[in-house]
Amino acid sequence: MPDRNLPVLLFACEGVDEAAWADALRGAAPDVALRLWPEAGDPLDVTFGVAWNNPPGFWRAFPNLRAIFSLGAGVDGLLADPTLPDVPLVRMVDPSLADGMVEFVVMRALHHHRLMHVYEQQQLTATWRPVRPPLIGRRRVGVMGLGELGGRCARALAGLGFQVRGWSRSPRTLPDVETYHGEAGLAAFAEGCEILVCLLPLTHATQGALNAALFEHLAEGACLIQVGRGAHLVEEDLLAALASGRIAAATLDVFGVEPLPPGHPFWRYPGVRVVPHAAAFTYPETAAGIIAANIRRLLRGEAANDVVDRSAGY
Amino acid sequence: MPDRNLPVLLFACEGVDEAAWADALRGAAPDVALRLWPEAGDPLDVTFGVAWNNPPGFWRAFPNLRAIFSLGAGVDGLLADPTLPDVPLVRMVDPSLADGMVEFVVMRALHHHRLMHVYEQQQLTATWRPVRPPLIGRRRVGVMGLGELGGRCARALAGLGFQVRGWSRSPRTLPDVETYHGEAGLAAFAEGCEILVCLLPLTHATQGALNAALFEHLAEGACLIQVGRGAHLVEEDLLAALASGRIAAATLDVFGVEPLPPGHPFWRYPGVRVVPHAAAFTYPETAAGIIAANIRRLLRGEAANDVVDRSAGY
Repeated sequence: MPDRNLPVLLFACEGVDEAAWADALRGAAPDVALRLWPEAGDPLDVTFGVAWNNPPGFWRAFPNLRAIFSLGAGVDGLLADPTLPDVPLVRMVDPSLADGMVEFVVMRALHHHRLMHVYEQQQLTATWRPVRPPLIGRRRVGVMGLGELGGRCARALAGLGFQVRGWSRSPRTLPDVETYHGEAGLAAFAEGCEILVCLLPLTHATQGALNAALFEHLAEGACLIQVGRGAHLVEEDLLAALASGRIAAATLDVFGVEPLPPGHPFWRYPGVRVVPHAAAFTYPETAAGIIAANIRRLLRGEAANDVVDRSAGY
Repeated sequence: MPDRNLPVLLFACEGVDEAAWADALRGAAPDVALRLWPEAGDPLDVTFGVAWNNPPGFWRAFPNLRAIFSLGAGVDGLLADPTLPDVPLVRMVDPSLADGMVEFVVMRALHHHRLMHVYEQQQLTATWRPVRPPLIGRRRVGVMGLGELGGRCARALAGLGFQVRGWSRSPRTLPDVETYHGEAGLAAFAEGCEILVCLLPLTHATQGALNAALFEHLAEGACLIQVGRGAHLVEEDLLAALASGRIAAATLDVFGVEPLPPGHPFWRYPGVRVVPHAAAFTYPETAAGIIAANIRRLLRGEAANDVVDRSAGY
């Protein structure tokens, strides 16, 4: 029986472990009444929402909503809904999500640096042929997107000893990372990169950013780590770059259509590793506390942390 | 024309990039005359030797030898030669070799932690099924061998956030690593480990250390990273552990017979990644300076660094 005096938090997320989230949110936010969709109760009561994979129009049914919390770092799905209420939209800045992304990017940058994609192919024909990689300090890695996740990944890669460059829309500086920005800086950034990491936000400006014109600047036999959004990549341009040898191998975590259809060439392309959108997860154990702290800020009349700038799209 | 007054360094290494080594050694040690096998000149002139993959009996042909430098960290091959002259035997402690091993172990520990071996299998059937791993702080990794390489790997894994245990023959302490030692400590060390890394030296005591009795203590579905020596692993015990599911996946860099014969079941076993003894390389750019510095110490009458204790075997 919800206490009428408590603000109501509606959890409406598709495809997540709802029981774990409910436990974690009840523990972290005892000062709100949690409701789990489709048990929303009176729509007029709903004060806060936790959103993931909702159909367009879903959130306009709650006129007294004061804020929406996204379960992920990317909010392009929510922003694609033209009826999304004009309340603060908070993106997830969960330390576990960022830690997970750093783990994944570090793992796959080392994988490609250490030529594991070559050994995977050699194993198919029982071929024993060691290949000595260059010293890590001579490997050029480029990171596109220097926000919360991209910035942390770039610094972690530099900490391992890679030669790291970063690119972002607007100028940024990062220790031990050579930064470039804007359309004008893109070619110089990409020139000679041997490993390219995409952690851009998805906006009109970044859609299709991973394309043939960009790939032309990479080192011959470069590797791509695509952990941004599916729409960043022009898939046919990657297939052409793989066929020509410009790109030797790719780790793809996100796709234009997800789940990736069974007949898609990426599943069977030598050198392409398909990961089912699993580079980083939000963990209820840590993320529930972040949501709860933001709710307390809003209830005290303060602004929430990590509110999305809707004009920028992130 | 070698200068008769300079000490002679004989480089006699099979299967390495001799030209790169010759360049690097000439640059690092201008105070010695370098000879490249089979151009040894007068065997009586040879003062120092750089050794790798030599046939048994090779080094006894040089009666005035004052020290032998191994090109790798493991010296079991040299020590297996009963005619090896009784001069200081120096193992390679090249920072690039250690850096390379840390890269490899970190990469494969993350690979197994992040269930990439599961996604590799799923890709074969175009199966899209994300699996959320536990937080890294809940992953138990065990490192066997806490010498130069094992110690650095254990600390790097702890630095990433893994829960790390270490085991060695004699007691050792390492920051953020729970250490065990001796036969008596082995079962407690292995109990519940989810990722097991072997970086033991190869001695009579450690031969066959990776066996069914040890595997029984690991967590169900554990992963093995074998970067020690081939003879540490009882290969049929690993195959049985893979078949029973006790071990879910293995990264194998070293084997009882190398190159691994084309018909060996490891090449085709699901979950087994075969790497052609390529986890770490000695780089002439850095290692030549280490050898040259040791030669200067010996010429000044000082003891060399990193001399092998022949009774211990490392």
